[in-house]
Amino acid sequence: MQLRKCKIKFSSINQIFISHLHGDHFFGLVGLISTFGLLGRKTDLHVFGPVGIADIIRLQLKATASYLGFTLLFHELESTQASLIYEDDKVAVHTIPLTHRVYTNGFLFREKIGERKLNISAINTYPEIERCDYQNLKNGRDYILEDGTIIDNELLTFNPLKPLSYAYCSDTAYKPAIVAQLDQTDLLYHESTFLKDKQDLAILTKHSTAEEAAKIAKAANVGGLILGHYSSRYPNKKMFLAEAQPIFKNVILSEDEKVITLDNKVPETLVVAHQN
Amino acid sequence: MQLRKCKIKFSSINQIFISHLHGDHFFGLVGLISTFGLLGRKTDLHVFGPVGIADIIRLQLKATASYLGFTLLFHELESTQASLIYEDDKVAVHTIPLTHRVYTNGFLFREKIGERKLNISAINTYPEIERCDYQNLKNGRDYILEDGTIIDNELLTFNPLKPLSYAYCSDTAYKPAIVAQLDQTDLLYHESTFLKDKQDLAILTKHSTAEEAAKIAKAANVGGLILGHYSSRYPNKKMFLAEAQPIFKNVILSEDEKVITLDNKVPETLVVAHQN
Repeated sequence: MQLRKCKIKFSSINQIFISHLHGDHFFGLVGLISTFGLLGRKTDLHVFGPVGIADIIRLQLKATASYLGFTLLFHELESTQASLIYEDDKVAVHTIPLTHRVYTNGFLFREKIGERKLNISAINTYPEIERCDYQNLKNGRDYILEDGTIIDNELLTFNPLKPLSYAYCSDTAYKPAIVAQLDQTDLLYHESTFLKDKQDLAILTKHSTAEEAAKIAKAANVGGLILGHYSSRYPNKKMFLAEAQPIFKNVILSEDEKVITLDNKVPETLVVAHQN
Repeated sequence: MQLRKCKIKFSSINQIFISHLHGDHFFGLVGLISTFGLLGRKTDLHVFGPVGIADIIRLQLKATASYLGFTLLFHELESTQASLIYEDDKVAVHTIPLTHRVYTNGFLFREKIGERKLNISAINTYPEIERCDYQNLKNGRDYILEDGTIIDNELLTFNPLKPLSYAYCSDTAYKPAIVAQLDQTDLLYHESTFLKDKQDLAILTKHSTAEEAAKIAKAANVGGLILGHYSSRYPNKKMFLAEAQPIFKNVILSEDEKVITLDNKVPETLVVAHQN
């Protein structure tokens, strides 16, 4: 329902990453998979999550006697080391081992560096460069004219866009050990279930405070920090902002249906948050 | 979320009846049970549903390592005969065997006849009737004065309220065999996934049309009919009303968050529907 409200195309979802087997993080998965089936999905769906997730989903799909017109592939996780679990042309995904009451992983999404962008007006000054040469230029090769002159690739192309990175860390106790892996990440979602007035409860339940989330963001020198997973005991979410910002300035409060865009095209506005 | 929106007290829910194991009828159950646990519920919860429901819920609760502070009791159904599955002082619940793509039951909720109501002003004309006699009067006994005079119970009490009945039939193909069991039911919810323009699809998917639901209501001579479980292909729900009412007049279209009150206190207004 939330995906629909946010107008996210179901067909754009091909991998699903489940951090841990607490209900607020996976009870809705079987309904989503089932809906994909009812809507006639054909393309493979990959689900990454703790050992046990496959049995839970398959038992329910079997009970409903539903036919899925697509292949559902489970990649069950059990390692407590940061591991590469998914990779394609554009992105690599690593687990971020977290500390919670059950086996939990965060996920680090890192874009790969893209191709160089063609500088068409520069290219057009060399009539002998043809379309079939473009891919080599995008790949960074210099161009050698027929007379042997070498044209530097940098004269014919622009730098590719800066690859972006996003880390999702929820649920977790304060865990400074993840800082090294998060170094320079553009955008970090870090849970802040509590404020420091409930530090004891945060320790007991293996959650974090807003202050702790900000400490992680600062130590890892990330571009921006998104807070979330707030305990319902706090009526005013701005209290989380107030606790985090003295430590780390660029903080965004996550809210239902808020869209946060990570943009590498406009310098100095890396993180743009707007409400739908 | 819908229960919350409708302000239904969670503590008033002690029995849950699941018709069949299709996702739209049970995927939310584990979340509800889990929420009951988080909110500190202590009282037993009884779940009635097809064989398999217990394994599905227990597997997920085990994975989440959740502690439930209450006892969860499953009553798994497999009979294809109408059966008494629950009974207390006030109500009896029978299954209504339905025909769908998987094993499915409707449920018939019948109030038991209540105690007679005391006619206090009549009672007060007999000073020797004491409070300790009231329960006997409520139970219908005549009162014998010390001089041997018999006072008819009907002079001292009013008739109890008419016991009400409600039948829930979803999902099901058109099944006239259920009519006998539904005879004179005050209120019937009967699915109408389709209109008769899709009679072929109704047969294929083992669902009903609005016309078929109305035929069941008419044949069983029920007090009112609620339609629902509409296919999303129909933009205007009034088409269901238009198809059903020529056959059976007292039709209500169910809608999310609509509250339908079955009232036995005001004659001739047995079914009162109002929008929250």
